Amino acid sequence: MIPERVLLEMAKPIIHHRTRQFEAVLEEVRQQLKWIFQTKNEVLLQASVGSGAMEAALVNCFSAGDKVVAIKSGKFGERWSDQAKAYGLQVIEINVPWGEPVAVGTLEKILESHSDVKGVLCQACETSTGVYHPVKDLGSLVHRHPQCILLIDAITALGITEIKTDQWNLDVVITGSQKALMLPPGLAMISFSDKALKHNSQAKLPRYYFDVKESLKAQLKNQTYFTPPISLIQGLRVSLEMMREETLPHLFDRHKRLSHATREGVKAMGLELFSKAPSDSITSVVAPAAIDGEKIVKHLQEKYNFTIIGGQDHLKGKIFRLGHMGYCGDFDVLSMVSALEMTLKDLGFSNDLGRGVSASLKVLHGH
Amino acid sequence: MIPERVLLEMAKPIIHHRTRQFEAVLEEVRQQLKWIFQTKNEVLLQASVGSGAMEAALVNCFSAGDKVVAIKSGKFGERWSDQAKAYGLQVIEINVPWGEPVAVGTLEKILESHSDVKGVLCQACETSTGVYHPVKDLGSLVHRHPQCILLIDAITALGITEIKTDQWNLDVVITGSQKALMLPPGLAMISFSDKALKHNSQAKLPRYYFDVKESLKAQLKNQTYFTPPISLIQGLRVSLEMMREETLPHLFDRHKRLSHATREGVKAMGLELFSKAPSDSITSVVAPAAIDGEKIVKHLQEKYNFTIIGGQDHLKGKIFRLGHMGYCGDFDVLSMVSALEMTLKDLGFSNDLGRGVSASLKVLHGH
Repeated sequence: MIPERVLLEMAKPIIHHRTRQFEAVLEEVRQQLKWIFQTKNEVLLQASVGSGAMEAALVNCFSAGDKVVAIKSGKFGERWSDQAKAYGLQVIEINVPWGEPVAVGTLEKILESHSDVKGVLCQACETSTGVYHPVKDLGSLVHRHPQCILLIDAITALGITEIKTDQWNLDVVITGSQKALMLPPGLAMISFSDKALKHNSQAKLPRYYFDVKESLKAQLKNQTYFTPPISLIQGLRVSLEMMREETLPHLFDRHKRLSHATREGVKAMGLELFSKAPSDSITSVVAPAAIDGEKIVKHLQEKYNFTIIGGQDHLKGKIFRLGHMGYCGDFDVLSMVSALEMTLKDLGFSNDLGRGVSASLKVLHGH
Repeated sequence: MIPERVLLEMAKPIIHHRTRQFEAVLEEVRQQLKWIFQTKNEVLLQASVGSGAMEAALVNCFSAGDKVVAIKSGKFGERWSDQAKAYGLQVIEINVPWGEPVAVGTLEKILESHSDVKGVLCQACETSTGVYHPVKDLGSLVHRHPQCILLIDAITALGITEIKTDQWNLDVVITGSQKALMLPPGLAMISFSDKALKHNSQAKLPRYYFDVKESLKAQLKNQTYFTPPISLIQGLRVSLEMMREETLPHLFDRHKRLSHATREGVKAMGLELFSKAPSDSITSVVAPAAIDGEKIVKHLQEKYNFTIIGGQDHLKGKIFRLGHMGYCGDFDVLSMVSALEMTLKDLGFSNDLGRGVSASLKVLHGH
């Protein structure tokens, strides 16, 4: 969902990107991005969706044949691993069962036995399963290996849950516009630590559109190397302003409260949570044995006009996922939980209507 | 400039891309793109600006070491050549003096003496100089070489001037959202001929984000492989609808009329055109010897609130460029020419105020 304030900003007549007016927008956005990323480093804007930023992270940090570890615990972990293989990297995969967070000890052993691992790829929140990985601990671990950097896909985490880029030693952090940042998709952001920039200076993978060197140079002058997605950047200025008004502690607390209320609502309906380490952005739920999860998604859409998403790949039909990130408040969660209750009743899953929403209400009121 | 109708469409509450509603938008956009590209082939949507589509064209059609010819007649010709080199292609450059169109005979000789050239890269309109290249003739020539494909960057040409993708044998045609298509930047489009897809099946350059195979497969089902730039695609549906209402002949005729009026206005002011083969999208003008072109750009912006652009690289200060593409009508051109006249007067270039705009007016009235 996109706030009206952002939609209306983007509906203003467009400005040209080679003007002082746009430079002023970019200057403000750059400063606020450092604030939300909790970094002193520049956060690079890029005209792509999140998967393009995942690719940019790879091609700017590595050379063909380099060894990286990919933490695969869902669809997006798989994607990053596949991207790395497509560019000829040697990928050591940690296959974490979908629904579980990675065990830091597993990575630790690999890094001890392979002193030539140059990078570790991990999602902060694995969107396909709703799992939140122990990003902070991964940061401490990788920090002890001077040749190795930690790359974090924080697309459904940054601006939702605490991500202390610098303090936690996260070398590359990426995000996209359409989650916490409350914008349409089409704009991605990436930060690079000094350690990552050192990798960059030796990285030989072919790149041009995603090359950060010229783009960073231009951005430091409030300009862009390529034509930027102007309207999204104008919208970003406003959404960051809104987040700044809310303040970081409140932002994180709101998402914590909303996810907690969602989980309690779901459990009170007699449903089981899928994620063993639930994120604050998305709640994944096991579909009742007798009901196809896809049917729940479809029914919610068609009868109640609620968009939730189903499971991906082998989880299709087995789970469904409830989003509560970005422009989302208490009553959105109560409505969503209510619509889910009614849907389950419609589909013949016996439950006492009101149990779920009551449980959610108690959490929200008590917080 | 973006039509209010498009801005308001994009300001509507966003829809999720995995919904029937979005599939219907995509279905309509796909059909209309074939119409504007004048092709029977699928036109792939991509979340990037135009330079990303230039890169996608390369990585999907070639392998490292492949030989291509790059027609360099300005900034964007240079960019494509640099991109090709960044990916390890062998690039034969045709260096055309900036301001001139390529001589087809030059390419003909190269293709005759190098039977292993796999592709030719050329802009339709070289935006940095305002030159329109003989795209149709290049198509006929390359068509006679079965191992070679023609890749056309039509970013400032498609939807402005006739580009008959299929009939002229243009194997890869790319464009971006922010020119003729009257949208903010951030969405690119690419078409591939059967000959280009045959190249694709042998192309080994590393790619993932820009890989067309999965994306094409998804798009044929009105879906997208990655999250798409939803709001831009919703806006595109409306801008294509507007273009359809205008009809292709009127669209091309309008741009012809506007560019003609601009040229006559500029000449009547005593200024010299820079391009020897002026495009219908952009008119490049030699700055008077005594005045820095950058000063003209700045003055127009600051005093008259008109955005025009200066020259790039070695043409900085030497030329300036007047745009008249997309959402632009007679009175926009008359205003622009008037503002330019006043600017030149302000900056001490002696001229009779009204000469330029009178000449433009005559063209527009007579057409």
